[in-house]
Amino acid sequence: MSVLGSEFTLDGLPLREDLRGRSPYGAPQLDVAVRLNTNENPYPPPPALVADVAEATRKAAEQLHRYPDRDAIELRTALAEYLSRATGVALARENVWAANGSNEILQQILQAFGGPGRVAVGFEPSYSMHPIIAAGTRTEWLSAPRRADFSLDADAAVQLIHDRQPDVVFLTSPNNPTGQSIPAEDLRRLVAVAPGMVVVDEAYAEFSAQPSAVELIGQLGGRLIVSRTMSKAFAFAGGRLGYLAAAPAVVDALQLVRLPYHLSSLTQAAALASLRHADATLGSVAALAAERDRVVEALTGMGFSVVPSDANFVLFGRFGDAQAAWKSYLDRGVLIREIGVAGHLRVTIGVPDENDAFLAASKEVATEVQR
Amino acid sequence: MSVLGSEFTLDGLPLREDLRGRSPYGAPQLDVAVRLNTNENPYPPPPALVADVAEATRKAAEQLHRYPDRDAIELRTALAEYLSRATGVALARENVWAANGSNEILQQILQAFGGPGRVAVGFEPSYSMHPIIAAGTRTEWLSAPRRADFSLDADAAVQLIHDRQPDVVFLTSPNNPTGQSIPAEDLRRLVAVAPGMVVVDEAYAEFSAQPSAVELIGQLGGRLIVSRTMSKAFAFAGGRLGYLAAAPAVVDALQLVRLPYHLSSLTQAAALASLRHADATLGSVAALAAERDRVVEALTGMGFSVVPSDANFVLFGRFGDAQAAWKSYLDRGVLIREIGVAGHLRVTIGVPDENDAFLAASKEVATEVQR
Repeated sequence: MSVLGSEFTLDGLPLREDLRGRSPYGAPQLDVAVRLNTNENPYPPPPALVADVAEATRKAAEQLHRYPDRDAIELRTALAEYLSRATGVALARENVWAANGSNEILQQILQAFGGPGRVAVGFEPSYSMHPIIAAGTRTEWLSAPRRADFSLDADAAVQLIHDRQPDVVFLTSPNNPTGQSIPAEDLRRLVAVAPGMVVVDEAYAEFSAQPSAVELIGQLGGRLIVSRTMSKAFAFAGGRLGYLAAAPAVVDALQLVRLPYHLSSLTQAAALASLRHADATLGSVAALAAERDRVVEALTGMGFSVVPSDANFVLFGRFGDAQAAWKSYLDRGVLIREIGVAGHLRVTIGVPDENDAFLAASKEVATEVQR
Repeated sequence: MSVLGSEFTLDGLPLREDLRGRSPYGAPQLDVAVRLNTNENPYPPPPALVADVAEATRKAAEQLHRYPDRDAIELRTALAEYLSRATGVALARENVWAANGSNEILQQILQAFGGPGRVAVGFEPSYSMHPIIAAGTRTEWLSAPRRADFSLDADAAVQLIHDRQPDVVFLTSPNNPTGQSIPAEDLRRLVAVAPGMVVVDEAYAEFSAQPSAVELIGQLGGRLIVSRTMSKAFAFAGGRLGYLAAAPAVVDALQLVRLPYHLSSLTQAAALASLRHADATLGSVAALAAERDRVVEALTGMGFSVVPSDANFVLFGRFGDAQAAWKSYLDRGVLIREIGVAGHLRVTIGVPDENDAFLAASKEVATEVQR
């Protein structure tokens, strides 16, 4: 039986012109033994966390017929406590806002401070959702380059911000997909010259020894926003919880554009339970950092060019044809990421066995493909 | 200790000009004994449903470190099956898309088919999030009136759509906050004259005997979208699950603007579990309809003017000062909704005891306030 309405095509619909010809964002979700493509924490939640999440969601389920706390007070309080502990900067729940993944956080930021007639800048290659969310909110996107070695040229960046006066500046530290953090001194200079909002995307901050930008929240007229996620170090990618720290006025601004009741009672309960196990979950960070260093060393030993990483992934090359190399890995049961950086691929650090499988495949790919 | 950055005000931030002076959307979330203000199903989920949701989320929690199925295949399949059963129209998962509440569904629709330079029309008073989501996506909002009795004047609406050629038409059936459904024949005429997309918001459809607009999906070039929610009859407001039915090409369009992994694995698991108990949950619909008829009759008997309702709420008046009347109810421990319709308030149908409390309060309010 044919699907109802399947004779109608997208070309025939009044889609916005700027969306025509685009493809949906997203890495292939393939059923492969070794999945090292989306920077997840490879360690499953400990049984005590699973039990706690289950009990919390069971309790929340008893009231499923009622709307959730629209302001997520308890969850934001717990996030503020965690972030205060992690950064040494005292934050209150008024400093914190949460949403369904940091993508929704970033979308709300651009709905409030970007949009038509406004410009956001990013230093690329960086998190590819930044320009996509800019497009989704009709914010003009200004792509500025990084150095050839993918580090951020702070002098050039300061000059560009000074010259172009963007409404929103995106800084990613550690940067995805390249892995480097922005030195604290560079960050201060960049933030100081920015005329509008500055978003420091710290999705991978737990993997880095660099200080968080949250210490700058009390300065700069409240124009600094630090976005974070529980998807990476926190091993909560399935739960979808992104958050930000900023001056309370920023949180007030986002409440003007957030969809009411955007965070379900199950999400709030599960994230709260997960935060109670932060020490256990984040215990994997040191192990992952050690594995990252092992992978970097081994890849370098095979003759690959490896970008220094402060995160739980590594960008490496150079491949004559990165897409073909990606496929070579896949043929060997190892799913990594072709991220649109010429000649390079990105691998997420997995558990030791997964990294071994990746390195074994790398040895074969190294001899197979032209570099 | 003062909150970090609390000296900075919203006025000092580069907020979009069109947002200045606005207030966040949302009914007051007050701790009152009788809450009849947000059109929830007042019956808690049955224990078997709670147990099933708990087990489903426990299982999902074991894989919380992994991103969820980005396309929510299993959930969309179950929603298609439910909707096929409920409407008698055969739908496949390619016809269905899901998001965190129907608000996110509507936002995605306007991101794809509305936006700057495009116009959406609604017949007001109607669901107040429609113009707010239009503003959030920078879609121009055209507010068209209903008749004085709040019914939809189909002739006038057809004329307006013909004259103004809006890119998106919102039709709400049953309409919130007024309660009436759009007769099938009127709906056909409205949809036929619309030049662009037509969104039929059927958030309250389970309470109505009117046929669903899904039967029109196979016509009209795929321009018809029916939005639905599990927040109302399904007693899943806390779980945040909205969905739509449309031609597959519409679903393709929304995948260009959806944030990747927008639906958590917990949401997908809990909604799936909840759908398995649809018969039990929707068993409350008949009881609520009978209670609604009782409330309407009693209010009418007290001299109130009551708008005929096809949903789980009733709009009634007239009050000289609706805000003062709302407060009078609240003073009596009954939280209802001041919805911005002059001289009127909206009450959600609760369990019999809650409705009794509301009617007792109504008797007192009737003698107290000037009508």
